[in-house]
Amino acid sequence: MGRSGGVTALLGIDYGGTHTKVLLAHERPSGLERVSAEIFRTPRSETALSELAGLVRGLVRSDRPSAFGMTVAGILDDASQTVVTSTNTPWLNGRAPARELAAQLGAPGVAVHDGAAAATAEAIMGAGRGRDDIFVLALGTGIAGAHVINGSVRRGAHGAAGEIGHVAFGTGRRCSCGQYGCLESEIGGTRLGARWDEERGAPPGSTARDVVDAARAGDAAAVRVLDAATSALAQSLLGVVALIDPGAIVIGGGLARSPKWIVEPAVAKATERATFHRLPPIMAAELGVWAGAWGAVLAARAAAGGTNASVLGQIRRVG
Amino acid sequence: MGRSGGVTALLGIDYGGTHTKVLLAHERPSGLERVSAEIFRTPRSETALSELAGLVRGLVRSDRPSAFGMTVAGILDDASQTVVTSTNTPWLNGRAPARELAAQLGAPGVAVHDGAAAATAEAIMGAGRGRDDIFVLALGTGIAGAHVINGSVRRGAHGAAGEIGHVAFGTGRRCSCGQYGCLESEIGGTRLGARWDEERGAPPGSTARDVVDAARAGDAAAVRVLDAATSALAQSLLGVVALIDPGAIVIGGGLARSPKWIVEPAVAKATERATFHRLPPIMAAELGVWAGAWGAVLAARAAAGGTNASVLGQIRRVG
Ligand SMILES: [Zn+2]
Ligand SMILES: [Zn+2]
Repeated sequence: MGRSGGVTALLGIDYGGTHTKVLLAHERPSGLERVSAEIFRTPRSETALSELAGLVRGLVRSDRPSAFGMTVAGILDDASQTVVTSTNTPWLNGRAPARELAAQLGAPGVAVHDGAAAATAEAIMGAGRGRDDIFVLALGTGIAGAHVINGSVRRGAHGAAGEIGHVAFGTGRRCSCGQYGCLESEIGGTRLGARWDEERGAPPGSTARDVVDAARAGDAAAVRVLDAATSALAQSLLGVVALIDPGAIVIGGGLARSPKWIVEPAVAKATERATFHRLPPIMAAELGVWAGAWGAVLAARAAAGGTNASVLGQIRRVG
Repeated sequence: MGRSGGVTALLGIDYGGTHTKVLLAHERPSGLERVSAEIFRTPRSETALSELAGLVRGLVRSDRPSAFGMTVAGILDDASQTVVTSTNTPWLNGRAPARELAAQLGAPGVAVHDGAAAATAEAIMGAGRGRDDIFVLALGTGIAGAHVINGSVRRGAHGAAGEIGHVAFGTGRRCSCGQYGCLESEIGGTRLGARWDEERGAPPGSTARDVVDAARAGDAAAVRVLDAATSALAQSLLGVVALIDPGAIVIGGGLARSPKWIVEPAVAKATERATFHRLPPIMAAELGVWAGAWGAVLAARAAAGGTNASVLGQIRRVG
């Protein structure tokens, strides 16, 4: 299993709260080459993994992967590969999703924390290439963070480090994690839409993109919601600088694709509010929404017996 | 210079915002042995370092140290040994205090971040001995924090990591650092006294110890102030767990000496409020108010050509 025409195929699955991205890559002498990529709505149920396996099989067809990597949004116990807590994909709690999927796909696989995967990819292949000591934020449905030191993510004592989205301020709105005033409760993709709907008394259902589009069109409520969200993001950036003092901050995830409404005002506010802080370069991510999937590909490569650490300098994204 | 009777003497100076501790130790085969120790009020002026040199000379007399270490409360540029910002000892800003002091004492010296010094000592010689991946808080006039990984403090890209005291919540009281709602503005030693004085409409001047003593005696205002302070500490502990996920947390500093009023309620509140968090063991520091001075001694030993890393297992505190 695993080679088609002498080329190693690696599968990356970025399993998000609302959308799943699947990326099939070939390992070439010149680097990792994207063969195919697909985004679909995340199956949200107990049978989600079976549905996922079916979707993946349809994508890879005869190009069977040597290994796959799969991101998990939440806390993952690396050793047992078990999902401890995932607020955005609660049906995975207590399960080892990569093992279940491996049985269905007939290929070895490994689960990785979504923030760690995206951060690793951004650090190795993206905006952080050539730098060290980088804190990466991914602003998606959830807020993931990771501190990449010497090319590897610091996972923490229980595999739970980097949860910048759930550093709670203790006051404000109740977050999905049960605390009050988390960054994610302000700027998490689904919360942003919900807050705008509340703010203007509309029925729920708006997405973060709807809010940005409305702000761009001059909607005052949308501008207010984004202003509060970028203030919270600025405060969190300053907190990361105070506590971790990284050499660079990379901001990615879906919301980072609207820099004028999200990243730029947050950086401006952080710069304005900084007192003793030494703000490092704050850069936009380069791999876009595919960072997590590329991180999953890197995990797949490691699971297939390859190493990322020893070839950092040679990894290039082709296609 | 530097040896008396074949024994290496090492001097540790813990230069705090209100008090300075000076510890003279001898390097013995059995470990570091305390020879003498003194606490005095920190000279607070432009001539503070000359006054400090005089006080130190009086303490060490003929037992001239091979080297000294000196803590600095604030942000220190390790390479240039220059104090970038110190909110509690602002007269040091822009100066290289260890160089100035070395000239006056006639011995080589090195400046170290106060939190890093105390954390290193607690990790190597104190509560953290034998453990790894420890976050250390020192609750003193200021709040210092440090993340000790593999026996050494992670200093950050600009030597400014670990500033848990100045992760601002954005609302609440103005902190000495210029932000609003920092932990230090709630539980910093001088602020605790000031808040109690405000709360009961008394003239300023109370210390943290006064507040604890009053709470113990049943003073309702003191109990309220401590309740707010331990709530803020609990929130910060959860933030550290979320962002850093350490293997253990060690709480030291002057306020930690009143465990029933400070550490125990904070840990109880953190435990109660924890949602997804995996709280690590939270332990009281063992070196007490001398942790910073012991850390300065360890820095002095390194400056004298010794190494701490290779002898971690053998270091014992004697006396
Ligand atoms: Zn939360
Ligand atoms: Zn502050």
